[in-house]
Amino acid sequence: MSEQITLSLSEVKSLSESILTQHGFNADHANAITEIIYSNQLADCHSHGLFRLFMCTESIRSGRVSGTAQPIIEDAGPAVIKANAQDGVSLLAMQAAMPKLISKAKHNGIAALAINRCFHFSALWPEVEILSQAGLAGMAMLPSHAWVAPAGGTRGLLGTNPFAFSWPRDGQVPFTFDFATSQFARGEIELYRRAGKPLPEGVAIDQEGQPTTDADAAMQGAMLTFGGHKGSALSLMIELMAGPLIDDLTSKESMAFAEDKPEAPYHGEIILAFDPDLLSGGQRAANQQRAERLFADVIDQGARLPSQRRQAAQQRNLARNAVNIPKSLYDDLITLQSL
Amino acid sequence: MSEQITLSLSEVKSLSESILTQHGFNADHANAITEIIYSNQLADCHSHGLFRLFMCTESIRSGRVSGTAQPIIEDAGPAVIKANAQDGVSLLAMQAAMPKLISKAKHNGIAALAINRCFHFSALWPEVEILSQAGLAGMAMLPSHAWVAPAGGTRGLLGTNPFAFSWPRDGQVPFTFDFATSQFARGEIELYRRAGKPLPEGVAIDQEGQPTTDADAAMQGAMLTFGGHKGSALSLMIELMAGPLIDDLTSKESMAFAEDKPEAPYHGEIILAFDPDLLSGGQRAANQQRAERLFADVIDQGARLPSQRRQAAQQRNLARNAVNIPKSLYDDLITLQSL
Repeated sequence: MSEQITLSLSEVKSLSESILTQHGFNADHANAITEIIYSNQLADCHSHGLFRLFMCTESIRSGRVSGTAQPIIEDAGPAVIKANAQDGVSLLAMQAAMPKLISKAKHNGIAALAINRCFHFSALWPEVEILSQAGLAGMAMLPSHAWVAPAGGTRGLLGTNPFAFSWPRDGQVPFTFDFATSQFARGEIELYRRAGKPLPEGVAIDQEGQPTTDADAAMQGAMLTFGGHKGSALSLMIELMAGPLIDDLTSKESMAFAEDKPEAPYHGEIILAFDPDLLSGGQRAANQQRAERLFADVIDQGARLPSQRRQAAQQRNLARNAVNIPKSLYDDLITLQSL
Repeated sequence: MSEQITLSLSEVKSLSESILTQHGFNADHANAITEIIYSNQLADCHSHGLFRLFMCTESIRSGRVSGTAQPIIEDAGPAVIKANAQDGVSLLAMQAAMPKLISKAKHNGIAALAINRCFHFSALWPEVEILSQAGLAGMAMLPSHAWVAPAGGTRGLLGTNPFAFSWPRDGQVPFTFDFATSQFARGEIELYRRAGKPLPEGVAIDQEGQPTTDADAAMQGAMLTFGGHKGSALSLMIELMAGPLIDDLTSKESMAFAEDKPEAPYHGEIILAFDPDLLSGGQRAANQQRAERLFADVIDQGARLPSQRRQAAQQRNLARNAVNIPKSLYDDLITLQSL
């Protein structure tokens, strides 16, 4: 393990905010982005924690990401909110629209938030957990770039298309998952490439559309979805739900828009909220117990709930009011802060 | 291939209706069930076509399935309909509630239908295609019986938990998929067992929770989800969304309720409807073209859209106004008709 240093939780926040404002994000954007980076770092999700500040600052330096865009939030139907991020990072639009999504879901039983015209770099679990903190179930999905081939195909078309879900538990951390519909994350293949290690079977195809375990060939070719044709179908659904359904880009369109610039992908996102009170016909309490029996049955047979490891890290780091990060990352962040 | 006979499409319907009424379903239930059995048989989906009449008639003979239940359809929120099937087969409740779901989705942008207290034996794709025929995107899911182990687990807890999605295409058959979140369908394992063939790896575990390729041991043990921990997470979501969220049974509760009776499983179902007009902010037409480019990109690289094979069978059988079924099935149905 590389040399680690310990940062207090308030240092995580202040370091993130200072780097973001230093690079041109206004206070509102810096706060919104920091909130999510902090959530990830608190949970030891290093890839989406402070490490993401490099992507944020590269994105704004490329010149197309607005650090001052004011999101426009409007009703698009009694149970639909549209949040136009106006070429900013998604997170300020998401945070501004979330209270409206919550109130619409509690009034209607179900509601949808479409975030449009946003640059996106963050994990989805903190977003659906905002809903579960409000007592709602939440679902979120979005495209990315066309790195992933559909089942039976030969080249990239689909994004790594994450899908997240959260269920509110009384007095406990929520049941949450957040997974890419690609078999591997893009960064994982890059790690294999750097380590010169062969990929497992079933992760990627080469430029000719043939199965490959060579990480270089995979980066030139395409990744595969998890779960064969079922994962591929799900990924196509995510393209539709977070693209054409809400008037925003598919992964292929997003990749063309990016023109190989080192930015976060530009596209849309859909978040759905479900009210257990209305949907259960007022039987929420009894059904919370039913859900708890389901979770207990998972754990009793030695299996894990999807986010158990992450949630344990959250609890641990909250209790000690600190996180550990690699010293090399810290040094790079301090350099970034002074650029 | 076994000996086949040809039935006209009207013979499919009249045979189904006559068997169902003969066994105690009233005309409304017989029509609703026949509509879905017909859709499946038309599409050469034999496992959910006329073959299902054996399960229907066994279910009603077991004495707990009502053939005359009048579903109660009521609003449970501005964007939520609850359909209480009152211990009948799900399909009459589904059909009675669908026009309300469609009108709520078109008014609100998104809406949910919870079907409760129903016996369920049908594929989900015809249900989400009712939504796409009305110009809406649709999603449906439900539990079944606790035959499937969660990832990392040792025994059955989850159902085969199907998930279906449909997207409306102008002037074309919809984009639709409908898959079990178990790696295999239960019936597939039974076919391996009868043929004395070993199962592929990764499909099942034995009673000790160890991987097995023995179909007998698999039937005694548990099935696995598709796609490892991601498929398992999705299956848990389906337990929650179509169980506690809507005040209905989990797969484990449904299996306990069944007491090994040869009935269709008893539980709930959730169907979600999404209006592309409202969710796209009135940009439906341009986004239909965007979706069509996505589909064309799948096909151009030699991959198939999920339901292409089924939809080709539908077109073929519609054009010739007939379907083929095995003569042995037909003979058994004629016997059933006279019981």
